[in-house]
Amino acid sequence: MSHTTLQKKKLIARVSRLKGQMEAVERALEAERPCGEILQLLASVRGALTGLTGEVLDDHLREHVLNAEDDAARAEAVEEISEVLRTYIR
Amino acid sequence: MSHTTLQKKKLIARVSRLKGQMEAVERALEAERPCGEILQLLASVRGALTGLTGEVLDDHLREHVLNAEDDAARAEAVEEISEVLRTYIR
Amino acid sequence: MSHTTLQKKKLIARVSRLKGQMEAVERALEAERPCGEILQLLASVRGALTGLTGEVLDDHLREHVLNAEDDAARAEAVEEISEVLRTYIR
Amino acid sequence: MSHTTLQKKKLIARVSRLKGQMEAVERALEAERPCGEILQLLASVRGALTGLTGEVLDDHLREHVLNAEDDAARAEAVEEISEVLRTYIR
Repeated sequence: MSHTTLQKKKLIARVSRLKGQMEAVERALEAERPCGEILQLLASVRGALTGLTGEVLDDHLREHVLNAEDDAARAEAVEEISEVLRTYIR
Repeated sequence: MSHTTLQKKKLIARVSRLKGQMEAVERALEAERPCGEILQLLASVRGALTGLTGEVLDDHLREHVLNAEDDAARAEAVEEISEVLRTYIR
Repeated sequence: MSHTTLQKKKLIARVSRLKGQMEAVERALEAERPCGEILQLLASVRGALTGLTGEVLDDHLREHVLNAEDDAARAEAVEEISEVLRTYIR
Repeated sequence: MSHTTLQKKKLIARVSRLKGQMEAVERALEAERPCGEILQLLASVRGALTGLTGEVLDDHLREHVLNAEDDAARAEAVEEISEVLRTYIR
């Protein structure tokens, strides 16, 4: 069973918190709150998203690369990580 | 009227698209989709969030710093930008 | 006198330390040190570079935007910051 | 032979170009060039450094994780990548 399935409940809870943070941005825009406040809300969404992505990536590295079922599965997981890294390290 | 109020409809539309992307992550977790797919979804949320934040920050720089009503408003906007930059440039 | 001129000595010292860190990467490559060590060295160069850039950017925001000599100088400084931000927030 | 040793000449050439870019920052500071120019130079150093690091990381992922000599070597390489990712994805 993969790590995102094993930790399904925990991960879904984090994603819904992230959705809650986006809803807070939505409300702030609706209520015409000061832009500085909206920038802060966006920065905190980014922080939460980055934290979540970093953990899923680390688990992926261990679960599907280090402890891969076979070489083919390992090669596939390495490609997936390589692709995600290209979006971060640029 | 501030830029986030002026562009309220456009910004709210983008935020709800971001929420939609987060719901896609939620559904993928619920359906126990492969982790590689979840990583890709998270990376695309990050891309959309970064694009949105970059635009709001740029508008903030122009609207509330370059074209500030007075020096006090400009100083406040500079502090807000400085704070957000610290979360990005580290 | 601009902030980079005012802090010339301090900034030049930091840049030469950064050069020293790059020379450490060079030596590690020459000596065929383990790749993990080279990755660590590169990551520490990035940390030092990011710290330096964040400070110069913040000073630029205050010196040439908040306390600009005139509106034309302020507009130019805002363009410069906007351009640098586009390389970071993407 | 590891990838950083195999590509030693190419990597050393890139590192010395990076050093050259840092020297350009040094000269600009010495000559009291406008801060906007110094910010641009720093941003271009960052771009080159990020490109180099991304490549070394990708090679490390393939060479020492995907094609590791044994499980112990693979586990060590995964730790190294995990550590570097923590400095990037935060």
